[in-house]
Amino acid sequence: MSSAGHPPQDPNTALEALLFDVFGTVTDWKRSITRRCERFGAEHKLSADWEALTVEWRSRYKPAIEPVRENKRPWADFEQLHREELDALLPKFGLDALSNDDRQLLVHGWHRTEPWPDALPALGRLAKRYILAPLSNGTVRQLTDTAKHSGLPWDLILGADIFRTYKPAPRLYEAALALVGSPADRVVMVAAHNEDLQAAKRAGMRTAFLYRETEDPDPEAEYDYTARDLVDLAEQLGA
Amino acid sequence: MSSAGHPPQDPNTALEALLFDVFGTVTDWKRSITRRCERFGAEHKLSADWEALTVEWRSRYKPAIEPVRENKRPWADFEQLHREELDALLPKFGLDALSNDDRQLLVHGWHRTEPWPDALPALGRLAKRYILAPLSNGTVRQLTDTAKHSGLPWDLILGADIFRTYKPAPRLYEAALALVGSPADRVVMVAAHNEDLQAAKRAGMRTAFLYRETEDPDPEAEYDYTARDLVDLAEQLGA
Repeated sequence: MSSAGHPPQDPNTALEALLFDVFGTVTDWKRSITRRCERFGAEHKLSADWEALTVEWRSRYKPAIEPVRENKRPWADFEQLHREELDALLPKFGLDALSNDDRQLLVHGWHRTEPWPDALPALGRLAKRYILAPLSNGTVRQLTDTAKHSGLPWDLILGADIFRTYKPAPRLYEAALALVGSPADRVVMVAAHNEDLQAAKRAGMRTAFLYRETEDPDPEAEYDYTARDLVDLAEQLGA
Repeated sequence: MSSAGHPPQDPNTALEALLFDVFGTVTDWKRSITRRCERFGAEHKLSADWEALTVEWRSRYKPAIEPVRENKRPWADFEQLHREELDALLPKFGLDALSNDDRQLLVHGWHRTEPWPDALPALGRLAKRYILAPLSNGTVRQLTDTAKHSGLPWDLILGADIFRTYKPAPRLYEAALALVGSPADRVVMVAAHNEDLQAAKRAGMRTAFLYRETEDPDPEAEYDYTARDLVDLAEQLGA
């Protein structure tokens, strides 16, 4: 990290901002959405394999965003894509009779995913030292509601609807860095996804891989930081 | 506010978000920038009429943003415009010898304007009930630094560099509403400037005029709320 001719410095001193993937990295979408669906099922006397539904719902997001990112489909936000994918998979789970309101209620679950247990204490520490923001494929409103509901101390919200494209599109990282207003090498992308981190790295950012049981099992490239969880990352960053 | 055929409701119950003008409405730019310049002058043994310089600097902002808003000049953010305007007025105050670093230091003052005394207590109360965001001609980074420095409890940051135009351009309010994700009539624009509020009103938003000694002396149209300060507004909104 030290420039040629200068003595090595504490690499943390130059960092200004941390950007976080949210679904899977900061929040536990699998448990949150499964529970919300289970609660919904209990209230409506509907039985289904809610966890399998949740996992399939999530798995459909990557193919759904691809045509948007590749300009083969006009901009459509996460709210819209979540609804389309839910509509597509309900018949398989014997739930094609769900009303429009019920479907919207389930889609709204993505505004309420709960942080992993380490997230709040770690982000509270990191916020004293760095600018913190989500950089997520979710909408600004989904991310705002999630933060407001659970107390995530973001300084600003960077959702894909600001950029009208999805990670890992290079121009999203570039535009995010321009808004954050720091040189790329003073900004860390924190994610449990290799694809996200490799794109951030190509944009000149620093990178932190986080192990999360629901996400990528291992780092597949060299990152500046590798952490067990966000508390571990906070410690590595001296926060 | 009640729809035809429905009994009148508490108009506050439907509100979801409050968007705030910042310079003049939430923060006291005049006192903050004057003091910063005075401190700078004392440190550098330079004397000048710092308050007059501050007032002239601020007064130049409207003519500076106009060509950008009217697409006669490519996008240039507040950081850049503040610097250009400072460069233009320094000779008049006998300060043309200031170095580049000194000028950047003064420009950085706009990342540190201090809230009016009522702002923090009022925003703390309002944040429990509503989504709060600045909607300002400042940059995302200026607004983030200002908030982080003084503890303004914004949920998200809406700076002009997201929209690449300036208030009161209609498309800025429309794009801001799309990101906030609430119907326009559930969102209040709070400002001490008639121009801002009238544009917000045209975008379908609710409006709150705030009296601030450095800004527009009086409301020049009918607004949903008129308040002495932000604590008064919080009370009117039941927060």
